[in-house]
Amino acid sequence: MASTMETHLKKESQSSKADSGHPAVIDGVLLNGPTLNILTAENFINQSMAIIMEDAVKRATDVREKVCEWRYPEELKELLDLELREVGESESKILQRCRDAIKYSVKTTHPRFFNQLYGGMEPYSMVASFIVEALKPSLYTYEVAPVFSLMEEAVLKKMMEVIGWEEGGDGIFNAGGSMSNMYAVNLARYRHCPDIKEDGLSAAPRLVMFTSQECHYSISKAAAFVGIGTKNVYVVPSDNRGKMIPSALEEQIKTAKSEGAVPFMVNATAGTTVLGAFDPIQEIADICEKYKLWLHVDACWGGGALMSKKHKHLLKGIHRADSVAWNPHKMLMACLQCSAFLVRDKTNLLQRCHSARASYLFQQDKFYDVSYDTGDKSIQCSRKPDVFKFWLMWKALGTGELEKRVDRALVMARYLAQEIKRREGFRLLMEPEYANVCFWYIPPSLRNLPDCPELWNKLRTVAPVVKERMMKKGSMMVSYQPHGDKVNFFRMIIISPQASRQDMDFVLDEIHNLGKDL
Amino acid sequence: MASTMETHLKKESQSSKADSGHPAVIDGVLLNGPTLNILTAENFINQSMAIIMEDAVKRATDVREKVCEWRYPEELKELLDLELREVGESESKILQRCRDAIKYSVKTTHPRFFNQLYGGMEPYSMVASFIVEALKPSLYTYEVAPVFSLMEEAVLKKMMEVIGWEEGGDGIFNAGGSMSNMYAVNLARYRHCPDIKEDGLSAAPRLVMFTSQECHYSISKAAAFVGIGTKNVYVVPSDNRGKMIPSALEEQIKTAKSEGAVPFMVNATAGTTVLGAFDPIQEIADICEKYKLWLHVDACWGGGALMSKKHKHLLKGIHRADSVAWNPHKMLMACLQCSAFLVRDKTNLLQRCHSARASYLFQQDKFYDVSYDTGDKSIQCSRKPDVFKFWLMWKALGTGELEKRVDRALVMARYLAQEIKRREGFRLLMEPEYANVCFWYIPPSLRNLPDCPELWNKLRTVAPVVKERMMKKGSMMVSYQPHGDKVNFFRMIIISPQASRQDMDFVLDEIHNLGKDL
Repeated sequence: MASTMETHLKKESQSSKADSGHPAVIDGVLLNGPTLNILTAENFINQSMAIIMEDAVKRATDVREKVCEWRYPEELKELLDLELREVGESESKILQRCRDAIKYSVKTTHPRFFNQLYGGMEPYSMVASFIVEALKPSLYTYEVAPVFSLMEEAVLKKMMEVIGWEEGGDGIFNAGGSMSNMYAVNLARYRHCPDIKEDGLSAAPRLVMFTSQECHYSISKAAAFVGIGTKNVYVVPSDNRGKMIPSALEEQIKTAKSEGAVPFMVNATAGTTVLGAFDPIQEIADICEKYKLWLHVDACWGGGALMSKKHKHLLKGIHRADSVAWNPHKMLMACLQCSAFLVRDKTNLLQRCHSARASYLFQQDKFYDVSYDTGDKSIQCSRKPDVFKFWLMWKALGTGELEKRVDRALVMARYLAQEIKRREGFRLLMEPEYANVCFWYIPPSLRNLPDCPELWNKLRTVAPVVKERMMKKGSMMVSYQPHGDKVNFFRMIIISPQASRQDMDFVLDEIHNLGKDL
Repeated sequence: MASTMETHLKKESQSSKADSGHPAVIDGVLLNGPTLNILTAENFINQSMAIIMEDAVKRATDVREKVCEWRYPEELKELLDLELREVGESESKILQRCRDAIKYSVKTTHPRFFNQLYGGMEPYSMVASFIVEALKPSLYTYEVAPVFSLMEEAVLKKMMEVIGWEEGGDGIFNAGGSMSNMYAVNLARYRHCPDIKEDGLSAAPRLVMFTSQECHYSISKAAAFVGIGTKNVYVVPSDNRGKMIPSALEEQIKTAKSEGAVPFMVNATAGTTVLGAFDPIQEIADICEKYKLWLHVDACWGGGALMSKKHKHLLKGIHRADSVAWNPHKMLMACLQCSAFLVRDKTNLLQRCHSARASYLFQQDKFYDVSYDTGDKSIQCSRKPDVFKFWLMWKALGTGELEKRVDRALVMARYLAQEIKRREGFRLLMEPEYANVCFWYIPPSLRNLPDCPELWNKLRTVAPVVKERMMKKGSMMVSYQPHGDKVNFFRMIIISPQASRQDMDFVLDEIHNLGKDL
């Protein structure tokens, strides 16, 4: 078929009557023929692929190589020569710039990158992301992105099955979990009062939403951005494991009502950022039903547990949520970014809430079923088909292997916790129930201090110094932070099947090596 | 340096005292060693790169190949076998799935893809995007994305120079022009009344913004999303070339004030979506100054003209804007997505407006200058380093070559317009001043009709049928739409140096071939 087409088009091209007699040059610009030399371009891409394979894939994921090659900003600026000039550079120079960009970038696919809620190398997803970059599709219409439009539908459907929405629902992939949470706030508000879309909030009552003190900061950003206001995010206390206290939620709802404000949604977090805690969704769902509030579950991080028969109990009740944010780019290792926003509603709420019906894009007189043009559900216009990065790996690994990976990461976290308890100079904040392992390292000089303010004041300074030293050595990356009344502690995140028990041991050995003189 | 590191880390790894005596298995899960076979993974990536090169680069950009391989949704679903199952598939099967995904996707990098405000193949940018996908960086902190944090700063600075902000400003790359326009609305509102961030809009007066009838639909989406309300977007009439009428803007502002509403921003469009029109920024800036309104310029599409000494007059006065949205992924051909939002303010307004100060990410006791941690300016958390896709191509081509490309695309558009006027059966809507060429094709059967409602009623149905036929043939992609009182017409978008005069002729020949029997 393609080769027929080839000949056919070639013939038409050559026989075009326009080929003779028309101006080839206007205003000194040659118009005949392309000015991009496609063979040179392909040759460059080929050469760069070899570099990507060698430096950005093989070396980046090699446990014997550095996780990062630290430079201070001023030094790195000089090394990179960032200035953009009138005249371009040679291809060999540009290839060197590619090597440098890779060299000085953090290797988030390295087996010892434990710094964020994502990490590790997923070959299928990586390949899918290369394909997306080569094809440059945009997911607004079936016409421009037929394959990915259908894939998005299929994957969302499957994810809804996993959540437990037996009757399906709706959803969209978008540019990150923060965006998903914003969608949730806007959608909950729209269901509460559709007129706000047109009228705005200035004549609306004071709308109030609820979330726990442990929630992700995007909830507060969302409230500010959509005009609800950060003060109208009522913060519900969590217990000492970081889980929202349902009775405190109900108290807050009553308080808001007594103030004359109008509660409209609750955000429950499944897998908090620092502690990896899961809010009790069942109890929260009961309260939402009682007060007729939209229940959104931010499962961006914890959603991965849904793939595990053993661990999905952590999200028990999620099928009662009105919406769910779930990022396969986190625990499930799809390439950045891969974030799904899912809605239980089946009345086209998502589209009604966000549509603008642009006639240049969503023409109604197309020759195919325009219900496949999903772009008007989005607040974006161009939108990348992130779904492919998840679909291809899921297809390759199967649900079974995804489950195994999650189970193994959580066993690995338990192993690390055991080691922390076993080793002198380490102190666990709490038993992990997910893949966050939080702990202090106590250098020998502080080990004999009693549990008093002096200890904590000194301990506060340990993690930042250890972190500085690990970055400069490049041996691994683990984050630290203060949290509530807890001074700086390390937070290990375990995700990737590249990580092994040896790496867990290495992390603890290395922290001790880097911090024992403090 | 790296090889020392290699040996060093290897030694530590091997000598770890943890290597003996600890449990290797917990709950039946083997923890010793990685479970991802890295050599198999690399081999798979290598094989897939060959496919990408052959199918998604070479064939996709070959003018003799099809732009698309059309299938109806139901048929394509069967071809793709989208179902996700418990057991994964073999690598050879997955490689075939990659081939299929490429085969049935639209080739937006094909020389005859003229359907959207982006298109064409940019080899440097494509390579940069592959590197980004391999490295999986996220641009919130310098620590995790040192190279790209500095690059973003450098490119934004350069773009601000091009805009003419001599004293610099601030900015951020984000997930598309719609997002940039949302940032603008939120920022304008924040400057007008910073309390809204905390208090929300329920106690605020009715805020009103202004934009032309020709603006992108994301302005209306933004107003709905941030709680302003679509009714509070006052639509200013445009002239017959699609440019906002400044006196009409002033009228609208007066009307809003007389209603007791509070005007706070004006959106001017530089390069409208359908007609490619440029609002008169100078006159609009005068009005904004007079009424103290935030001036945002949506130059997502038209911003490319700023690179051309010959055409930058189209955006005269843009240096007076408070903010600018400019997508290098459109006219300048950076890979999707590459969208900059730029702000003239130098008082850290962007960060103050959007910050949430998450302590787990933006620790203040880091060992480097945390002003390089730019993540809190964003409404996203994870954010892709889209800047690299622009930086690398700019570095390779130089400002001079970028300018030449823009100039050539606009000459090509003029050539096409001339041909449309010259050829029987084609009718130009208006002379293009940018890269949008809008025209009707009138089949022979309608050519003798007078300019009456009957003609337009019949003409309405021509473009959709021609479009259907071109999709099914796969010979090219050109969009059509109705617009205001104009019935369906074609809109050609010319961007890429791959496109030639021969392609322009081909488009007109092909439309005639496909539609002459109508």
